[in-house]
Amino acid sequence: MQRYFIDQAYQPTVEITGESHHHMSRVMRMTAEDQVFLVFNDQTAIKARITAIDNEKVMLEEVEKERLQRELPIQITIASGFPKGEKLELIVQKGTELGAHAFIAFPGDSSVAKWDAKKQNKKQQRLNKIAQEAAEQSHRQALPKVNFTSEKELMAAFADYDAVLIAYEESAKQGEKAQLVQTFQQLQADQKLLVIFGPEGGLTPREIELFQTAGAKLCGLGPRILRTETAPFYLLSAASFYYELQY
Amino acid sequence: MQRYFIDQAYQPTVEITGESHHHMSRVMRMTAEDQVFLVFNDQTAIKARITAIDNEKVMLEEVEKERLQRELPIQITIASGFPKGEKLELIVQKGTELGAHAFIAFPGDSSVAKWDAKKQNKKQQRLNKIAQEAAEQSHRQALPKVNFTSEKELMAAFADYDAVLIAYEESAKQGEKAQLVQTFQQLQADQKLLVIFGPEGGLTPREIELFQTAGAKLCGLGPRILRTETAPFYLLSAASFYYELQY
Repeated sequence: MQRYFIDQAYQPTVEITGESHHHMSRVMRMTAEDQVFLVFNDQTAIKARITAIDNEKVMLEEVEKERLQRELPIQITIASGFPKGEKLELIVQKGTELGAHAFIAFPGDSSVAKWDAKKQNKKQQRLNKIAQEAAEQSHRQALPKVNFTSEKELMAAFADYDAVLIAYEESAKQGEKAQLVQTFQQLQADQKLLVIFGPEGGLTPREIELFQTAGAKLCGLGPRILRTETAPFYLLSAASFYYELQY
Repeated sequence: MQRYFIDQAYQPTVEITGESHHHMSRVMRMTAEDQVFLVFNDQTAIKARITAIDNEKVMLEEVEKERLQRELPIQITIASGFPKGEKLELIVQKGTELGAHAFIAFPGDSSVAKWDAKKQNKKQQRLNKIAQEAAEQSHRQALPKVNFTSEKELMAAFADYDAVLIAYEESAKQGEKAQLVQTFQQLQADQKLLVIFGPEGGLTPREIELFQTAGAKLCGLGPRILRTETAPFYLLSAASFYYELQY
């Protein structure tokens, strides 16, 4: 059943205009009595029935709440040093399917990609669109947002999280394997985890030291060296396995 | 340090010709005393030193064995119903990084892609090349192979595995969450697990019934609906977290 993210708080009867109206009426050619899933910006998800539809709006009313909890109990934000090419698109698409709460892209010391404000703006819009499509397809109950920040802004935001991890290749090489499990054990429901991933070439010693001084902890993701876009998939899958399958 | 997969059993002094010789001498312009990692087809991995190099061969001798165990304790084979476009390339590349032991591609009932023998042969070569590059990059100690089989061949191979799972979207929708953990708990080191993933559109009821009758078990991968190429990443990451970080 089609899924729509509605940028307003939950209410049992809803009037929808704009893009979602267009998609229901023109793309899907829906009519009265058709049913869809609606996800409100407070993460309430309902099955709803169309009561009326015209050229400007769709009227819907709640049939029932969605029963299955589809969001990870902790909120995980993936921060990626600007990677090359279309890798950020892949991270956002698959990361959304795998349950990421939000994405941050920042200019890493090793980043080859340099995007000016205009290009960055365009890329951000494109990435948010990808996140929305992936959220609909994977039946999310929250819509992840993608933001571009400077290193300074990234670090200023550390205070908003209950834990900050650095996925560090050298930790993996040295066989570090306790930190991720420990962090999962410590975090309670609704707490927030930020995990920082370097671009191709990794984080530099300067960045590592800076982030560590600000409270971030180094964390290995198993004994194989993962590409910059693969490491977030590992982290999110491990979180889902730990919180959603094991307990 | 550069990594080479050598298709022969371990020996402390080695003579290398062919493609790896070309890469060492021409691409990397290596000379005597340079060091590389060599991985033999019995999964022995060593650091080796070049003792001599000429236009036809490279002579190397062992410096030391690689200490870190980089292979998952269980051998996981990923079987994918032919997906669209370049998705198999993505599955093989990222799946190799994440530790898959082997890959099988089979024609699923819902597969849109139809490859004739010639196209299939070419695709298989390409995929094995991708697996090799990913194995080198991720520091694997075993080189995953990619094979194309019929449904009949896939099922005949069930007997070679200690457990067979079906990643099934409907299981996820219904909140099934015990099977994966149970399977991991039951498998011992060096045992073999086959996991079957449908193409886009999923496995059909006919396929599910067929595989189940042959002993495969349905398995959910968390409450979000994963794309056909994302589900194997989840499975492999969860296995690594379970076997390599938690215990």
